[in-house]
Amino acid sequence: MQDVYVVGAAQSDFGAFPEESYRSLFATALEHALDSVDGQLDRTDIDEAFLGTLGVGGRQLGLSAPSVTEYAGLDGTSATHIENACAAGGSALRQAVQSIRAGMADVALAGGVEIMTDMSGDRTRYWLGVSGETEWERMAGTTFAGVYAQMADAHMGEYGTTREQLSTVAVKNHRNGAKNPHAHLRFECSLEDAVNGTVVADPLNLYDCCPTSDGAGAAILASREVAKELTDDPVRITGSGHASSRVGLFQRPSLTSIPASQGAAKEAYDDAGISAEDVDFAEVHDCFSIAELLAYEDLGFCAPGEAGTYIESGATEPDGERPVNLSGGLKSKGHPIGATGIGQAVEVFKQLRGEAGDRQADGLERGLTHNVGGSGGAVAVHVYEGGWA
Amino acid sequence: MQDVYVVGAAQSDFGAFPEESYRSLFATALEHALDSVDGQLDRTDIDEAFLGTLGVGGRQLGLSAPSVTEYAGLDGTSATHIENACAAGGSALRQAVQSIRAGMADVALAGGVEIMTDMSGDRTRYWLGVSGETEWERMAGTTFAGVYAQMADAHMGEYGTTREQLSTVAVKNHRNGAKNPHAHLRFECSLEDAVNGTVVADPLNLYDCCPTSDGAGAAILASREVAKELTDDPVRITGSGHASSRVGLFQRPSLTSIPASQGAAKEAYDDAGISAEDVDFAEVHDCFSIAELLAYEDLGFCAPGEAGTYIESGATEPDGERPVNLSGGLKSKGHPIGATGIGQAVEVFKQLRGEAGDRQADGLERGLTHNVGGSGGAVAVHVYEGGWA
Repeated sequence: MQDVYVVGAAQSDFGAFPEESYRSLFATALEHALDSVDGQLDRTDIDEAFLGTLGVGGRQLGLSAPSVTEYAGLDGTSATHIENACAAGGSALRQAVQSIRAGMADVALAGGVEIMTDMSGDRTRYWLGVSGETEWERMAGTTFAGVYAQMADAHMGEYGTTREQLSTVAVKNHRNGAKNPHAHLRFECSLEDAVNGTVVADPLNLYDCCPTSDGAGAAILASREVAKELTDDPVRITGSGHASSRVGLFQRPSLTSIPASQGAAKEAYDDAGISAEDVDFAEVHDCFSIAELLAYEDLGFCAPGEAGTYIESGATEPDGERPVNLSGGLKSKGHPIGATGIGQAVEVFKQLRGEAGDRQADGLERGLTHNVGGSGGAVAVHVYEGGWA
Repeated sequence: MQDVYVVGAAQSDFGAFPEESYRSLFATALEHALDSVDGQLDRTDIDEAFLGTLGVGGRQLGLSAPSVTEYAGLDGTSATHIENACAAGGSALRQAVQSIRAGMADVALAGGVEIMTDMSGDRTRYWLGVSGETEWERMAGTTFAGVYAQMADAHMGEYGTTREQLSTVAVKNHRNGAKNPHAHLRFECSLEDAVNGTVVADPLNLYDCCPTSDGAGAAILASREVAKELTDDPVRITGSGHASSRVGLFQRPSLTSIPASQGAAKEAYDDAGISAEDVDFAEVHDCFSIAELLAYEDLGFCAPGEAGTYIESGATEPDGERPVNLSGGLKSKGHPIGATGIGQAVEVFKQLRGEAGDRQADGLERGLTHNVGGSGGAVAVHVYEGGWA
């Protein structure tokens, strides 16, 4: 099995870009990713590409991947579209890892892209709804925020998690994201703001919800042999985990944990030969504030039910024991569905190389990304370490 | 790198099944695939699943894979949706190969499914159109049959390929498919019928076009170690190739060849350490009659321009030097988009094990599958051999 290294990674700005397309955003991300490679890597060096996107909304549906990659200059390169709703990027990353580990590519591209802000009103709600279960959630009128609201409500009831603890996710992530030049919502918010936001789906308010964003990301992975030629500052992917659980929340045994997060984390930890305590920092899937708290517990950063006190302790602040969402997370950086999982990898790559600018945290050796599809129907977890194996 | 074996493979019937769903068809295919394994393999033994589907038409869009696999009893198993239009199944097969070669799964499932016949009239045409290029083909009014008609017209003009040679594809494949109990169109047709079919997109008539079908397929792949426990009659995947070319036909240098077919074949042959002459039989992507002729040339079965005389010689008949589409191909067996590439693997598996019933051909040791997305935007080619490595 080949070792896998990230040799370049970048994202477009995340935000609302009416003048951009799937193709132009991805081309931008790929160009910046190639620029981020220390050595000289050309588009023609890429053996295989995997593109994560939900890709709905009237554009090219069949052949979503080659129609995007060809525009970015990858004419002829094998390209495959990977979809797992909001985990599409993380799933694409896993496919690139598999391609290199299998020895079938020396250089593999994991990309992700989404355009969301050109869908107005009802249409946005409809498409967001499709990531829930169709028959008994979406068609019964449950919104996606409503699904996560059920989880928040249950967590508050079962463990005494407070309104303030939920809002602390927003405060922390906005504070981090305000330092990220690529973030969609680059502003800080106070705890008072976050507690008193307009209700979206009780108990979740506006500050508990990530925005809908346009954006793209690209991560270039290489075998050890190729990576050695390209960089002296490698980031190795040491663990990859992927799991599914029932798509409908109502079909799962608990409202306060996501089995696929637990399963993917276990596989990734076993693959990397580590346990949760060994993770220095993480980018987790905070599509809603409650999702970040569930991630703390499902990934083993704290015990079940203790996520509220864990965030309150400051443990996941930039100067805490385990910074989470230094990029601003989905909450502030934005959530362009297919690009989100790749955006997480971009942040871990930058932090491990000390290239995260104003939001650089100290002493980071091992990072994790956690990307959730729907309310937990699919989850991808990856573990990264700085340095050669 | 782990060797990869197919230890079980099966398909549902292909046809028009108004009483079936994506979920029920795939569950049927998986059940039959598990039954086809010589030893005892349970659903819980499957480490990872890849599901090829275009998956449009108002069903579950996000999380297409776990929503289908959970219904088939794979709750919790990693499931990822793979899309490359009509090559989705072949692309899913490649991902399963990568997963096992990478050592990340001992048993991987490659599945495919599509429901097409519940889309009536305009809607069917619309969805079939999406596999063409969006901006300059579909939105300009070009149908998918129209794209292949341009290729047929060019091939006839450039090489003198005849109306009868095109129709011989239909005659051969219907004769084969009439012996396949799972085929959608189980009847023979005469050359006279095929030559005089109702015009669809000149020069292509009804007999030059495959049907729109519902159906599902499942192929179970295993590492050598696991395969050894399960069977004494193994089928090894020795070569995997995957390539893309420009999605729009008008963007490509020639109308009479598909660069991605050539690229994927080269990669698969190199991977298997063989050349085209070593292929005993093949299942190729005959969505339109001209597509089978192009495949002969792009896969290297004959020289450019000679496909017409090659089929006329009887070389690809069941008793010829290289039988093609013993299953009936897309033309007779049917073409449920995402299931098609898996259905091809099912046929090769059965032929190599001598389990193809009335359509079993003699002396087959090495088979090939060729699965095309759109008019050639993505192509997957795989090579299979009977016996242990």
